[in-house]
Amino acid sequence: MSTVTQIGQLDAWGGEKGKHFIEKEIGAQFVGTSVNTTQPGGESPFWHAHTKLEEIYIIVDGRGEFALGDEVLPLEPGTTLRVAPGVMHALRALPDSPAPMRWLCIRAAGQEMSSVGNDAELDRDRPFPWNV
Amino acid sequence: MSTVTQIGQLDAWGGEKGKHFIEKEIGAQFVGTSVNTTQPGGESPFWHAHTKLEEIYIIVDGRGEFALGDEVLPLEPGTTLRVAPGVMHALRALPDSPAPMRWLCIRAAGQEMSSVGNDAELDRDRPFPWNV
Repeated sequence: MSTVTQIGQLDAWGGEKGKHFIEKEIGAQFVGTSVNTTQPGGESPFWHAHTKLEEIYIIVDGRGEFALGDEVLPLEPGTTLRVAPGVMHALRALPDSPAPMRWLCIRAAGQEMSSVGNDAELDRDRPFPWNV
Repeated sequence: MSTVTQIGQLDAWGGEKGKHFIEKEIGAQFVGTSVNTTQPGGESPFWHAHTKLEEIYIIVDGRGEFALGDEVLPLEPGTTLRVAPGVMHALRALPDSPAPMRWLCIRAAGQEMSSVGNDAELDRDRPFPWNV
């Protein structure tokens, strides 16, 4: 297990399966991430919901639709949405999408960000290695 | 607060500041996400570490370097890495990067993914709205 992996260029996200889960490769503890490609006309294999996990979807390229409970939302480059736990959802790339849909799905559960607060420790004095 | 937002095309990630935090716009509870642009030669304003949060960096375009504690790792499109809590880090885009560096930083804390397990509920029978 390494801290670093290589997921490929945007136009190869997800590899042959179209879905690449990253978390185990980099030893992530709290964050699950997949990078994905859905070809025009492609769609989720089924609806699903999570009981605990929140999911964030970020569309980087292509156009599609997102079924979020009873809503259908348009997807275009830059569309970013949250799926709350318990909400059934699915997506597709439009058959006439000008490009394969490239997208991320990020998921986590457990501790609310608002309860973590600002946990950052700064070191404004340490020089960067590329400057020394 | 909406579940959906628009972060723009990849070549506009981060807007004028070069950093766009998404979580509040979409009401995320557990996952913090920013999309970022670092111009060639640009670098972090300072080193930082988090006491609780794990961070995942995904480089989508451009070339740079990542200072992870005492290591310096090369960054290229597709490089994905985890920063454990407590580890000081910083990044830069190479002065001769062929493109601005476009990258995500994803963060969360609290419940280990391995303890969440498979919490997915599938509905293989429900038709998709675009097929009915």
